[in-house]
Formats: sequence, structure tokens, C-alpha cells
Amino acid sequence: METNPCNNHVNGGSSIPSKVSRKTKPDDTIVSIKGVGIGRSEIVIIAGPCAVESRDQLFRTARSVRAAGANILRGGAFKPRSSPYSFQGMGEEGLKLLDQVRKETGLPIVTEVMDTRQMEMVASYADMIQIGSRNMQNYPLLKEAGMCSKPVLLKRGMMATIDEFLLAAEYILNHGNDQIILCERGIRTFETSTRNTLDLSAVPVLKRMSHLPVIVDPSHGTGVRWLVPSMAKAAVAVGADGLIMEVHFNPEEALCDGYQSLSPDEFDLLMADLKKIAQAVGREILVSKAAAF
Amino acid sequence: METNPCNNHVNGGSSIPSKVSRKTKPDDTIVSIKGVGIGRSEIVIIAGPCAVESRDQLFRTARSVRAAGANILRGGAFKPRSSPYSFQGMGEEGLKLLDQVRKETGLPIVTEVMDTRQMEMVASYADMIQIGSRNMQNYPLLKEAGMCSKPVLLKRGMMATIDEFLLAAEYILNHGNDQIILCERGIRTFETSTRNTLDLSAVPVLKRMSHLPVIVDPSHGTGVRWLVPSMAKAAVAVGADGLIMEVHFNPEEALCDGYQSLSPDEFDLLMADLKKIAQAVGREILVSKAAAF
Amino acid sequence: METNPCNNHVNGGSSIPSKVSRKTKPDDTIVSIKGVGIGRSEIVIIAGPCAVESRDQLFRTARSVRAAGANILRGGAFKPRSSPYSFQGMGEEGLKLLDQVRKETGLPIVTEVMDTRQMEMVASYADMIQIGSRNMQNYPLLKEAGMCSKPVLLKRGMMATIDEFLLAAEYILNHGNDQIILCERGIRTFETSTRNTLDLSAVPVLKRMSHLPVIVDPSHGTGVRWLVPSMAKAAVAVGADGLIMEVHFNPEEALCDGYQSLSPDEFDLLMADLKKIAQAVGREILVSKAAAF
Amino acid sequence: METNPCNNHVNGGSSIPSKVSRKTKPDDTIVSIKGVGIGRSEIVIIAGPCAVESRDQLFRTARSVRAAGANILRGGAFKPRSSPYSFQGMGEEGLKLLDQVRKETGLPIVTEVMDTRQMEMVASYADMIQIGSRNMQNYPLLKEAGMCSKPVLLKRGMMATIDEFLLAAEYILNHGNDQIILCERGIRTFETSTRNTLDLSAVPVLKRMSHLPVIVDPSHGTGVRWLVPSMAKAAVAVGADGLIMEVHFNPEEALCDGYQSLSPDEFDLLMADLKKIAQAVGREILVSKAAAF
Repeated sequence: METNPCNNHVNGGSSIPSKVSRKTKPDDTIVSIKGVGIGRSEIVIIAGPCAVESRDQLFRTARSVRAAGANILRGGAFKPRSSPYSFQGMGEEGLKLLDQVRKETGLPIVTEVMDTRQMEMVASYADMIQIGSRNMQNYPLLKEAGMCSKPVLLKRGMMATIDEFLLAAEYILNHGNDQIILCERGIRTFETSTRNTLDLSAVPVLKRMSHLPVIVDPSHGTGVRWLVPSMAKAAVAVGADGLIMEVHFNPEEALCDGYQSLSPDEFDLLMADLKKIAQAVGREILVSKAAAF
Repeated sequence: METNPCNNHVNGGSSIPSKVSRKTKPDDTIVSIKGVGIGRSEIVIIAGPCAVESRDQLFRTARSVRAAGANILRGGAFKPRSSPYSFQGMGEEGLKLLDQVRKETGLPIVTEVMDTRQMEMVASYADMIQIGSRNMQNYPLLKEAGMCSKPVLLKRGMMATIDEFLLAAEYILNHGNDQIILCERGIRTFETSTRNTLDLSAVPVLKRMSHLPVIVDPSHGTGVRWLVPSMAKAAVAVGADGLIMEVHFNPEEALCDGYQSLSPDEFDLLMADLKKIAQAVGREILVSKAAAF
Repeated sequence: METNPCNNHVNGGSSIPSKVSRKTKPDDTIVSIKGVGIGRSEIVIIAGPCAVESRDQLFRTARSVRAAGANILRGGAFKPRSSPYSFQGMGEEGLKLLDQVRKETGLPIVTEVMDTRQMEMVASYADMIQIGSRNMQNYPLLKEAGMCSKPVLLKRGMMATIDEFLLAAEYILNHGNDQIILCERGIRTFETSTRNTLDLSAVPVLKRMSHLPVIVDPSHGTGVRWLVPSMAKAAVAVGADGLIMEVHFNPEEALCDGYQSLSPDEFDLLMADLKKIAQAVGREILVSKAAAF
Repeated sequence: METNPCNNHVNGGSSIPSKVSRKTKPDDTIVSIKGVGIGRSEIVIIAGPCAVESRDQLFRTARSVRAAGANILRGGAFKPRSSPYSFQGMGEEGLKLLDQVRKETGLPIVTEVMDTRQMEMVASYADMIQIGSRNMQNYPLLKEAGMCSKPVLLKRGMMATIDEFLLAAEYILNHGNDQIILCERGIRTFETSTRNTLDLSAVPVLKRMSHLPVIVDPSHGTGVRWLVPSMAKAAVAVGADGLIMEVHFNPEEALCDGYQSLSPDEFDLLMADLKKIAQAVGREILVSKAAAF
């Protein structure tokens, strides 16, 4: 059987990633986002709307996820959308709203950056920057993230192998930033009953190969609201260090991804269930000081 | 955007499966294998070797999985192998060993049938017949299974959509047999770090669409022994009604799939963990009367 | 990077197929179907309806494809259908019609067999038996085909790697039948604008690895009628030894796969185009003696 | 069967791309690169090294592809590489070499841009800018390309559906640039005998849906040198308006993708074959004025 020399190349081959590898650094890396540590025994919950849409939408959602116990707030100001005619995000105005809601709720903020030219600006507002699935192999952006002083949430490309995912993280590490969280968010397959196929086996595989913390996004990973709780529970059972989920005050009216967003009540119920699963695997859901606000 | 009329067809389209649908039968179907009920709150554990290799291998493995609490014994006498030069199974001699080990351990037996001509013979030994992944769209075999008096464990094809999977079950139901268990066992994707990608979202999707019980095979679903416990736990968390796992007395020497088989000790440890997860989702692992032997 | 021992196994690994390999037999195998040779410089055209539906439909379609220059007639009497409620074929009655139309037109017949129990009966009517995509890993059927005295048209499974495809052919060869034609018919991918993704690179890959002739099915490979001519031309350009295409006297009223069947006029036009492409790659479309009828 | 509202969105749904659609503009768009028109009956050949490595390598390769009849020179100065430890390109120095070789050979230049911050600089050297597969959904980059005065070669993402591909082109068109060439370069599938699966059916599908010209990259599409000629011929037969291919003066010593680069002699032979195929489909290979140098 002939082998394609190229496959080795694509998969890393002889240039096996070194800085992300557990062989290089056997101990778990703990990433700290304004005092919230990811990678410890405590499981971290990131929640919030897909996109920042308005002051009212953001604040109401943020208060409800904090009350339910979320540790970090998510919300996009710059949105990568397949169509140029879809809502593209509020831009810097959205970042300012995130800054305000952080002041009120005490929740650290994670938000996506899409453009090298905006890295500095986004990083000045965010407590953690997110590099989205479509930009997992946007190397100039990865290099900028590597030179950034904020932690990075790196989402797996929807068609990226585990090896390519780790090589993308290696770009960031190699440019000086070791505060990286890997996020499994579903891969593209032939199956159409879900938006993506959430590859939960990626969690133990990544944790075995790398020292970086691994979280799961069951919202994008399924694209279907009623599937989010089941897959969130499975993600905790499989060993994820955290979850990132979309919650919207009123999913039906969301400008973006409403069909996969939980309502505050659904999120609240899920948090109770997650605590039980965490306990069953000898861990617990992190209780933030912010929750004491 | 043009749509392919064919997609509707492939996905069931207007001929949406009726007998497998929860709309037709809202209540959960309970499949009973010699008194072991699958589809109830109790989670059923099926374990055993990939293939029956010898009397000694089968009996030692069967005793150990029974001792650890397995409810049903699996073991193949006819093996579908990609290469004609791989071990093809012991045939009827293997079935006879399964019959003997059932007598000793009290464990019901599930074993695969690959050929319409052998349906009657295999069904005469088995307590449940298995239709494997590669035969999910072997329609003559599905029809024979539909006319068979034994329950059927139907594995999802590695290339089958959820709709096609349910249509395969519809073939069996439509020929008169409603004792069907659906089994998610991993789909083929571009990812190569696992043998298949275990699609755990299929479990809640199938349970919402159909009244049939759904189990998960983390052994074939990952193809990697050390991943089996994590994915088994996730499967229980996501709502599976049971698990089917490969256990071998000595995985290193297995004639088939040893790299994905648990040792008896690993299986024993896993069972303890599964009990905790089951409890966390308000269920429990079934305790067989057989365990009292 | 850990490697899964299983991948080697799935891909053939150390048990590299020997009898199908060009290393074992450097010369091209020529498969002869009642005097029509496939694997020579001349490109063979197989055409006809997806399913035999009636005497009138079969005879009118057969006459028109013969008039346009087809060398072999295709037509299914036993149809693998995703849904149990779709037309399942006319069975032996369909085979009898194929026998009659062969007598009238002189065209050899290829038709699918799905069940080991029907191998002898189907082979008694057919000049070449077809093993369909869904049965590519139906090993008992492959073994029967290996013991059959008729040539075998083996279609690639929609989720089968090249290695698995060759291993399936190895099953047939290993049981004594070396008259095998490999057929690329589209693989399953994430793309939905076509029913399958026709993998034309499989043609040169297969021809390099094996001595067996390789043909292409652009009808199933695309699932879209207006794409068939373009892909048929590309298949000849890439080096296919033949084409198998669905032609229906009245595609709009076909009981099966009408949306991908050419009308006789479309087929006629395509044949003229194919002659030019064949010439451009130094080959020609086979002119059957049957055409002189 | 539940449908995911999201699928409609991803696939274009109600927000069907308008500016790229043939419904909006029935006539073929002709893209002109310094006098070389793509989208006419004449088929355009783009060839050159994967990466600019040195003055000597670039000039020798450029002269040989011009002598063989190539119309446009390709060559990367900024290279997207999976690993941070692979050769990343010569940067602006490479662009300067491209400028010099253009002066000598008269061949227009196409080269990749990866970063919004470099758009202006790259566009000042290039006759056509390329947006690579990994950046197909890099929306800030697409917007910059839309505001750029140079034609854009947009490569299909390895994970992108046809609909997403057209939506990416819509971003460029919507920002003011209608000089876009679509390039099919292989999609990611489960098959591993080739680096990607070249989806040739995408060519007629794209040309039916859009007025934009469509070319094919058989070098990246297969990742295997000996497959390039076969797939190039098939691409012309299927209706491509052009080809882009990697040619290297000495493939064995290439710093990037040597295993998929043709030698000048192989390219020369291929050009002769392509002329015959073009003729067979009623077209011809464009003869550049540059070729008269």
C-alpha cells in the first residue's frame, strides 16, 4: 500500500509539536482568567449570548447566568457569519457593553477576535480572547495571539484533525503565550440531524497528548437547543475541564444562533444536573467568588 | 439553491418511518432478553470477547464479566473481517461454546449473524442476534431478522445517517419483529486518532425520534482501549439504555480487536465508575439475577 | 503522536492484499462478459434502467441504448432500498425479462445480487453479477461471488477506503474468481449539492495498485441527471476502462432513481461526446458486434 | 424528522447569495489578469512553484513553465503551514523576486495574501491575489479583497460546502470587487490514499449556480505528483475554465509540497495532452502573447 508522504506532513510527522506536548511538560497547565483557574479539578462554566445584541439583552442574560453559577461570560462583538447579509456583530460598541457588564457582575469576559488589526483593541477589553473555529488555521492571527498578554480560547476547526488542532496551539505557544484553552466544538461529518458531530473522544485524546486544559462547546457542537443538556453532561463525564454554552434571555428573538441557545431557566436546571455528574467523576463545578456578589 | 430530490429519498422524505417512530408509539419499547429488560430505567451492560476463540478464553472472560456485574455476554462466532486472511471466527463450534458458557454462567448470549442462510441456526443458539455495522443495509438479512423470534441488536452502519439507521430498523419491524435495540458504534469521519468517531448525540436524537432502546459500543466506537472507560461514562451520562463492550481475558493475545478490549480488571473498575454516573442521571446499573449465581 | 494499531489493520497493514495487487500480477486483467472485454484500450459502456419495471420499459430502453452504442445492459431485479416501503424490484420475473431482452438485443446483462441464497439463480440469468455498494463488505456474498462462474462487478462502498475496496475484491479472488471489475460510484462526504462525491482520483489510484479493470458510475456518483454527462467525460479523461450509467425511457416516471437517469436522447448525445474524449486520451469507445444487430 | 433551522442558514437558505448567482447575472463573468482573460472558451493555465524559495529556483521554473505555454505564474511568498516549524515563505523579498521574474518573462503573477495588514502590499506586487483554502471564511480578509483593485483567486475551503464557497465569494462581490475566480482544490474526506478528494462535480455545479469562472487545482487536490496529470485532464473534460498547478525545477528539493509538484518535463508533456482534451470538449488552451517572448 503506498503511503502519501504528505499525510505525515499534515499530521505533524517528524515535526511533532513540542511545546504543547505532555512529553515536554507532564504537568497540567492551569490557565487563569482574572482569578478563575481552568485545568484544575473544578470544572469551569462559560455562558452567555452568541452575540452582544443590546445593553438590555446582555445585562439580563449576564445576570441570569451569574445567578445560576456561571464563572465566565461569553459574548461576541465581532461575528464570523457565512453570509455577508447576516448580523455581523456590534463591534467595539459591543466590547464596551461587555466591559460594563463585567463591572456590574464581576464575571470575566471572553470574546472573539477575527482580525489581526483588532487584536490589541479586543485584548484591551477581554479577559480572554477567543479564536474561532473558522480561524483555527489563520496563522497571522495565531501569531498575534501568541504575542498577546491575555489567555486564549482556541476552538477546533470543524474539519481539523487533533494533530492540526495541536499544531495551531503550538503557533500560539511558540510566540510566547502559554495560557491556552483548547475547545472541542463539533466536527463536520455526513450526518445532518445535528449541525456538527460533537467529538467527545477528542477530550481524553487531547488531555493525554497535551498539558493544556480542554473544554467543550455543546451549543455549536450540536446546533440544537434540546441536545445541549445531554451533551453537556456527557462532556463532564468524559473529563472536560469546562463548558462553554450559549444562553439567551429570549432565544426565539436572538439575532444569532437562537435555535441552539438555552433559556436562563434551562441553563439553571442544567447547572444542577452538572453538579451531580461532576461529583460522580470526582470533581465539582467551580463556585466563583463572583457568585457571591 | 437547487435541491436534490434524492436527498429527501435517502433521508426518508415523505416515507418517514412509521413503525419505529415515537409518533406511532409514544411509550418506550422494553426489549427482554431472557428476562433482562433493556429500555427501562436500569442500564444494561453487555460484555465479552470480540470473538469466541477457545473454550478457555470464553469461559474465563465470561466468568470475570459476570463477576463484575455484566448482564449479557457478547461473543462472535462469525466475524466480518476486512481482510480474507484475518481470523473469520469459529462458526457453529463457537456457538456451541456460547451455549455451554450460558449454561454455566446464566448469562444470556448475543452473537452476530452475517448470512441469511445461517439466521435460523444462529437464532437457535442466541438469546439475541446481532446485525453488525457492515450489514445495516443488508436488506435480505434485515427481513430474516424481522421474521425471527429472537430480539435483534442492530448496529448503526459506520456510514449511515440517523434516518437510514431508523429505516433499517423499520425493515425489521415491518417484517414482524418489534424487539429491536439500536446501537451507536461510531461513524467514519476524517479524524484518524480514533478508529471511528463515536457520535454520542445520536443517543438523544434516536430516543426522541423512536421508542426503541438505544445502547452504545465504546469499544468499536473508539478502537482504543484506554478511551473506552471515558466514553462509556459519557454514554451513560448522555442517556444510553445500555453499553456493549469488549473484554478479553488477555487483550494482548486476542485474535481480534485486542487493542480495543478491556482486561477484566479494567472492566471491573469501570463498572464501579458507571454506577456513580448512572446514579447522577437518576438511573442505576441493572443487577442481574445471574449475578447471584 | 500515538498511532492506532487498528488503522493499519483496517487499511490492510501487513496483510496487504496479494492477489489483487499489481505487484503480484503486473499485467492488466481483461474481464470478458460474453465476448465484451473490459480492461483493454477500448472503453466499455454499460447502460440501462436502474430497475426493471416492466417489459415495455425494459425493451424500449434496451433498444435505445443499443442503438446509441452501449455494449452491456444493466437493470436491477432485486433492489436495495433504504426504505422498506420503496419499490423492491420485480425479482425473478425481472430476471426473465432481462433474459428475453438479451435474446432480442444481443446485449449481455449485468444485474445485482443481494442474497447468498439467490446467487445461483441470479448467476444463471446474468452475464455478469453486480455486488452493490451496500454489500461491499457482505463477506458471505463476496465468498459466493468468488465461487461463481460469472464475472463480478464490485461497487465501492460509499464509505469504503481504497484499501477496503481492494480487500473486498481480494475476498472474491481468494475464493477462485478473478473476473472482477471495480466500480467507483461516489463516496459519502459532507457536501450535499450532490448525492455522493464522485472520487475520480480513485480510478488512477486503483489502476496503479491493482491489475483489475476500473469503471465509473456517474449516475449514482452524482445523483443528478444534468451532472452525468460532465462526469462521464471526466471519467474517460481520467482513465476509466468503462462507464455504467442509468438510462430510462421516461425518467420522470421511473420507479427508482429517475432524477439521475438520462433519457435516450441525452445518452445518444453523450456517446458522441465520449468518443471525442476517448480519442483525446488515445483510446476509443468499444463498438460491439451487438451494435450490428 | 426534525430539521435544524441552522442548516438552511448554513446552506444559504432564504439568504441565497444574490450577486454571485447566475440568476442575477446570466452571462459568464470574464476575469482579466493583465490581459489574460479567464472564463472564455480558452482554458487558462497557471503554473509555478508552491513557494518562492530563491531567485534561481523561481527564474528557472518560471522560464520552463512559460516555455511550455503557461499563461500565469503562481508562487507563494507568505505560506500558510500547519506547523510553526515549517518554512513560512520569504515574505516581501519573495514578492520582489516575483516582480522581477514578471519583468523578464512577461507572465502575470498570482500570489497568496494571508493577513489584512498585508493586503495593500501584496496587491501592489500581484496581478491577482489568492485567498487560500484555510482563509476561505476569514471574513475581514474577504472584505479587504472586496475593496482591492486586483482580481481575486478564491480557493474552496477543504471543509466548505458549495453554498458556503459561494457565500464567501459573495463577501468579496458585496464589497465591490467582481473580478473573482473560484478554485476547487479538494475537500477533506475519510479517504487517505490522497491528501484531499478532488471534487470535480463542483465545477459544473458552480458554473450552473454562478457566473464566475471556475478553475481546478489538481496539485493540492490530490497531493500526489503522479496523479496530477490524470486529474488535470479530467478537470478540463469536466468543464474547468483553467488549471493551477505546482511545478518545481527540482521537486525533490522543494522546501514546500515537493511531493505534489511536477517537474518541468512532466508539465511539458501534460500541456500537450491537455490540448487534446480541450479540443475534444470544443475549447482550446489559451496561447499567451507572453509565450511569444
